[in-house]
Amino acid sequence: MNDTLFVQTAALIQFVTDVLTRHGLSAEDAAITADVLVAADRRGIESHGVARLKRYVDGLHDGTIRPDAPLQVVRETPVSLVIDGGGGMGQPVAYRTMQRCIAKARDNMLCFAAVRNSNHYGIAGYYTLMALAENMIGISLTNSAPLVVPTFGKEVVIGTNPISIGIPARNERPFLLDMATSTVPRGKVEVYARADKTMPDCWATDETGLPSTDAAQVIRNLLARAGGGLLPLGGGTELTGGHKGYGLAAVVDILCAVLSSGSFSLNVYGDAGALAQVAHFLGVINPEAFVGLEAIRQNLDAFIRMLRQAPRADGQERIYIAGEKEFEAEERHRARLPLATNVFTALNQLGEPLALRLNVYS
Amino acid sequence: MNDTLFVQTAALIQFVTDVLTRHGLSAEDAAITADVLVAADRRGIESHGVARLKRYVDGLHDGTIRPDAPLQVVRETPVSLVIDGGGGMGQPVAYRTMQRCIAKARDNMLCFAAVRNSNHYGIAGYYTLMALAENMIGISLTNSAPLVVPTFGKEVVIGTNPISIGIPARNERPFLLDMATSTVPRGKVEVYARADKTMPDCWATDETGLPSTDAAQVIRNLLARAGGGLLPLGGGTELTGGHKGYGLAAVVDILCAVLSSGSFSLNVYGDAGALAQVAHFLGVINPEAFVGLEAIRQNLDAFIRMLRQAPRADGQERIYIAGEKEFEAEERHRARLPLATNVFTALNQLGEPLALRLNVYS
Repeated sequence: MNDTLFVQTAALIQFVTDVLTRHGLSAEDAAITADVLVAADRRGIESHGVARLKRYVDGLHDGTIRPDAPLQVVRETPVSLVIDGGGGMGQPVAYRTMQRCIAKARDNMLCFAAVRNSNHYGIAGYYTLMALAENMIGISLTNSAPLVVPTFGKEVVIGTNPISIGIPARNERPFLLDMATSTVPRGKVEVYARADKTMPDCWATDETGLPSTDAAQVIRNLLARAGGGLLPLGGGTELTGGHKGYGLAAVVDILCAVLSSGSFSLNVYGDAGALAQVAHFLGVINPEAFVGLEAIRQNLDAFIRMLRQAPRADGQERIYIAGEKEFEAEERHRARLPLATNVFTALNQLGEPLALRLNVYS
Repeated sequence: MNDTLFVQTAALIQFVTDVLTRHGLSAEDAAITADVLVAADRRGIESHGVARLKRYVDGLHDGTIRPDAPLQVVRETPVSLVIDGGGGMGQPVAYRTMQRCIAKARDNMLCFAAVRNSNHYGIAGYYTLMALAENMIGISLTNSAPLVVPTFGKEVVIGTNPISIGIPARNERPFLLDMATSTVPRGKVEVYARADKTMPDCWATDETGLPSTDAAQVIRNLLARAGGGLLPLGGGTELTGGHKGYGLAAVVDILCAVLSSGSFSLNVYGDAGALAQVAHFLGVINPEAFVGLEAIRQNLDAFIRMLRQAPRADGQERIYIAGEKEFEAEERHRARLPLATNVFTALNQLGEPLALRLNVYS
């Protein structure tokens, strides 16, 4: 494992914002993007945090992300939107779409938006949290680069297509699901490959399309496009439910891209150097559409307590609620947060030519 | 395995309708219920078909299902409904709610309904198919009797809570996901117990809360309420993604019951002899809310073809699309369908005191 050090949370946001503005993003778009990235680190989802900053900077340079893209409303009804992101940075595209959804759900009870022609938008849960902050129910889905092999397939055809949904509680923390529809993300296989550990056989397949426990081989195959890839939630067979994870991943792609006439499956990141054409599906439900905010909050509190107080398996100390670990991490990391030393070094390498420097928290 | 024989599909629907009317259901409610049950058999989902008829008849007799329950609209907006099923038969409650959702989505683009105080509604996909028949996108979720152990739990706390979503295609069959959020249904463990087969370790836990491969032991524990139960999709550990299936099951319970102030988790079928208090969540999306019906149908055709034409794993002949196997079964079973001999016998035992007889197809 990498060593970690601490940085000031606010300083990290400022640093990322400054790097992005120097690479052509507007001040507002840079601030939104920095907040989404650091939110991932704060919530303990380092795979989607500032470690990815270089990829976004590269995207701004190689033309796969357009820094000045206008957000275009393709179709609008009182309760829905089709948005074209114009190839812009995914975080501001999704952020602004979610703002519109919240406003429309406030007036009209529901709003769902299908967004095409965007880019990687960070953690799906960020946009769900935006709805929760307004005491609304939030939904956030996105397609992504093809990394997942469908049940009985040999090659990657579909993304890790995450599902996030959040519901406000009263005294409890909100319920916040934020999950990829693959069993694990690619990063987890990379960690096992580096550590030379044997994977569970529900994570990935080899070049023949059969489940593999050899993490290094799976990563080599992915890099060489030699076949195989991540498995959907449920693993590589119908016996273990892999067709369900594959079905869920397909639902995400359909809601995001089929409903927006965007790009899906192999067409996402389909051409190197061209726009990535990521698609999202965002939604907001006003609790007043159903039994109302106060009743829903109380009901959710009771539901959460019933789960939490259930008897625990031998050797287990706790039954978790979706989002709970991440909310606890966020509370720990308000002022300062841990960064892997190699991520810290890479950030300062990005900052150096711009005369920007991120300091260790002391 | 049981022997099977064939019955005429139309005759089976008539027989089930007649049995239900004789037990107090109105002609219309009985016809709806019979159609939902036989649709499951036609689609190859025998676990949710006419094999369950006796349970519904028993429910009508023991007071857990009210044959004359009025459907009450608790709250209504242009795009949402909260429905109280009054303890009525689940199929007519869900059918009538879905009819209202379709009508409201036609006028107002979207409609979602949270339904409380209903009963087992059969296959979730039936109501999604109702939306597809009107060229709309359908969503159908329900909670159910607690049979599933949460990640790190020892006892059942949550239902098998299925998710169904359907999107219309043009030349292809619709995409129709209809999946329990547990790895397998209880019936699958029973089949393994009877055959003395070893289960995969992602299906169920024993009385200590740890994954088990002993199907007979799991069924004994469930009957004796001795602990253990079905595992969520992803199995019994976070390493294999079990927390994701558990999270999805919780989302279903929240949308159905928290949004309707209905019963959730252990309170569903909480008291023997009392109303079962099952809750549903049904929704319809008008394609015109997004890029429109024709564009969506064409996009979905292209998406389905991309999945189907992907290279296959060694030894595999076909990559399936959600719902495809069931649509093919339905096409085979339009005129006649297979019934297990013991189910056929049980049906005629129900019919005998009412002078009703189901004949073998010849």
